[in-house]
Amino acid sequence: MASLDSVLACLDLNIGRSVDRLTDLLRIPSISTDPAYAADCRRAAEWLVGDLSAIGFKAEVRESAGHPMVVAHHEGPAGTPHVLFYGHYDVQPVDPVALWDTDPFDPQLVTMPDGTKRITGRGSSDDKGQLMTFIEACRAFKAETGELPCRVTIFLEGEEESGSPSLLPFMDANKAELTADVALICDTNMWDKDTPAISTGLRGLVGEEVTIRAADKDLHSGYFGGAAANPIRILAEIIADLHDEDGKVTLPGFYDGVDELPAEVKAIWDSLGFDEQEFLGSVDLSVPAGEKGRSVLEQTWSRPTAEVNGITGGYTGKGFKTVIASEASAKISFRLVFDQDPAKIRAAFRAFVTERLPADCSVTFHEHGGSPAIQLPFDSPVLTTARQALSDEWPKPAVMIGMGGSIPVVGEFKRRLGMGSLLIGFALGDDRIHSPNEKYELTSFHKGQRSWARVLAALGEKGA
Amino acid sequence: MASLDSVLACLDLNIGRSVDRLTDLLRIPSISTDPAYAADCRRAAEWLVGDLSAIGFKAEVRESAGHPMVVAHHEGPAGTPHVLFYGHYDVQPVDPVALWDTDPFDPQLVTMPDGTKRITGRGSSDDKGQLMTFIEACRAFKAETGELPCRVTIFLEGEEESGSPSLLPFMDANKAELTADVALICDTNMWDKDTPAISTGLRGLVGEEVTIRAADKDLHSGYFGGAAANPIRILAEIIADLHDEDGKVTLPGFYDGVDELPAEVKAIWDSLGFDEQEFLGSVDLSVPAGEKGRSVLEQTWSRPTAEVNGITGGYTGKGFKTVIASEASAKISFRLVFDQDPAKIRAAFRAFVTERLPADCSVTFHEHGGSPAIQLPFDSPVLTTARQALSDEWPKPAVMIGMGGSIPVVGEFKRRLGMGSLLIGFALGDDRIHSPNEKYELTSFHKGQRSWARVLAALGEKGA
Repeated sequence: MASLDSVLACLDLNIGRSVDRLTDLLRIPSISTDPAYAADCRRAAEWLVGDLSAIGFKAEVRESAGHPMVVAHHEGPAGTPHVLFYGHYDVQPVDPVALWDTDPFDPQLVTMPDGTKRITGRGSSDDKGQLMTFIEACRAFKAETGELPCRVTIFLEGEEESGSPSLLPFMDANKAELTADVALICDTNMWDKDTPAISTGLRGLVGEEVTIRAADKDLHSGYFGGAAANPIRILAEIIADLHDEDGKVTLPGFYDGVDELPAEVKAIWDSLGFDEQEFLGSVDLSVPAGEKGRSVLEQTWSRPTAEVNGITGGYTGKGFKTVIASEASAKISFRLVFDQDPAKIRAAFRAFVTERLPADCSVTFHEHGGSPAIQLPFDSPVLTTARQALSDEWPKPAVMIGMGGSIPVVGEFKRRLGMGSLLIGFALGDDRIHSPNEKYELTSFHKGQRSWARVLAALGEKGA
Repeated sequence: MASLDSVLACLDLNIGRSVDRLTDLLRIPSISTDPAYAADCRRAAEWLVGDLSAIGFKAEVRESAGHPMVVAHHEGPAGTPHVLFYGHYDVQPVDPVALWDTDPFDPQLVTMPDGTKRITGRGSSDDKGQLMTFIEACRAFKAETGELPCRVTIFLEGEEESGSPSLLPFMDANKAELTADVALICDTNMWDKDTPAISTGLRGLVGEEVTIRAADKDLHSGYFGGAAANPIRILAEIIADLHDEDGKVTLPGFYDGVDELPAEVKAIWDSLGFDEQEFLGSVDLSVPAGEKGRSVLEQTWSRPTAEVNGITGGYTGKGFKTVIASEASAKISFRLVFDQDPAKIRAAFRAFVTERLPADCSVTFHEHGGSPAIQLPFDSPVLTTARQALSDEWPKPAVMIGMGGSIPVVGEFKRRLGMGSLLIGFALGDDRIHSPNEKYELTSFHKGQRSWARVLAALGEKGA
């Protein structure tokens, strides 16, 4: 414990420098989904390799068919477990830029009226801030003890925000190198600002882009209006058809494999004291908009959804244009739970759209990733160890929660490498990830570093 | 007739120079709806004033609250009528630019495989090519006879493609100056390439932009999906609700004032030999998509419509973003017929949307112009004179037709100045106005000039 105390003290002493390092990384606009930022993605990978090498990792930029991977290894004392830390250095696009109060790629350390501090910028929370909590913990161990408490592999990808197309080929090609006793993943939330959380359930995801075409060119709505098929209207009708009046998704077979929540899990969730009004109120909403008769935690953790994430068609500039567009398209995603099959959901959606196409219309589909839901055990020894380490750091004990988002790599680690995962993150619900004005609390960053130091020390001592 | 013959010969001789003048005008990107092109709109107005002054008109750029007007006067022989020619020098936006085969503002004279020639570029047909047919006819009269066959006022606006916000105030402020015996308007189509047409009915228009907002920021569809209202889905449901299964518009009171077509008009339309398959086939469609049980001519000339002209919300860039947008918006227009009241339709639409808003959602509306439908008499003397003049020029006699588009100025000329209008245009249905690859047939441009020479000569001789 003496060495852990000195590591924690080292993290406290160096918080300023660790913020500087994070802001250096945040200045790199590594938007993976837009090809215009490919060089920036590579630059972020190189920055991380440089930083990890400086700590003493054997770190490399590793090529893939897409943006490069970062893989770094560090030995641990004999008999200690081998942990793999996974994160991603890519970020979401920043539009609409006009809604940002600060430049998304000029991060700032801002002091709020209540005295708390936060780091602003795209990626500050998702996932550069989170992954740097782990790297800073490793740096402090090296500085204070000259070693790490266990063997550590760090594996960072640059395509998490764009469906991870290169991840599985890379994992398959480097199985032995990437297989550890347990994976640590820092891409999730705290329960609240005082309560750390370990996520044990994650929804899956099916992403689809659908484009409907009618006439072979844009038409004047005066000359053709009334006689010509309007793809925007057809797309709107299909979207409207996707839900019934009770908020249930109408795709045939959509609820195949969806179970009711086990009573024991429901009991845990009920005990969390979740405040629906506060959760919705934080984004200026008040009424749960999903399936009738379900709590917000059920709606976001254990029930599947269909969401339109984007739509475009016709004239969308300033002013008005009396045009009937030749095409309209939407990006639609489904969040999956329990045993829903991504391939079946995708096929059902495509059939649903195709059946509703009127005469003269055609449709094309573009796949944007798919992964089933994940359910992790509630009672593994490594989870118990980590839970205690987190509880030692924060004002309140750690809780086990579900999660509405998707982290496909968790399922792939299990499926391909036979490796379980621990999902521990220090983001907060109001971090505005994927939105304008993303931020990461300085408390998340600082106590996140301290949390990883405690978890690593405990795993080194008790095994994984 | 000797002087008319020499004027027609002069137009034939100078067709090359007249194409050069038109292409000069087409090179000016006078997109009125986009403030970025305000200086270009003014430049187009100045170009026209320069050209009309060179012919001998007393021409001026006249200020308005928006883009300037062009007003030009030329005296005629004593006892001849006073005609006002109306056109517009502004053009539609050019997006999507990628679909143009040539630069929209670098007009070309292209020879097609069948030997016909066309002028390409935004505005070539709508309305710069059309308005220049009239100016070229005036030029030839001046060159050959030193005078015009009747007194002519030319009135050109620069906001026709963006709802003409300055037109009415300008007309009201300059009533005496703009009031003539009849207005000539060249912004319409031929019936087909051999058959000139005079349009006697035009649909009205109500334009609305609707924006629906829910959460106060874009949300991550993993954390909030299932619990948060999705404005795109709500907008899609409202759009889907706008039509019933028979293609009728469902707004309460929408069909108030909509009459069935008089038998005599229906007989004229039936005699036109309109080929629905050819009309729809020209844009790769085959089935009339509008109200069931109505012909295409009814659907586009005598029935009202509701069309979505544009929609946008959420992430519309490359790749995928699992976001629930905070807002979504659509541009929606209604084409009106007979006695439908634009103000009542707008109010009904706004009520329709507002009633369908779920909890936590708000809506804002933005008005984009409104005008009632127009019905002109079938049997006025001036129409008979013009019909004969057109029939003298083209292979087939002129016909009287309806029109699906809206030319609000026609109603305002009647209402504010007590002046009837003659709608004669030489555009063709495949000119792709408002779309990529807009063009104007050289035949339209050349025989259009000759047609106006004949109409002016006949009006000078027979009166208006």
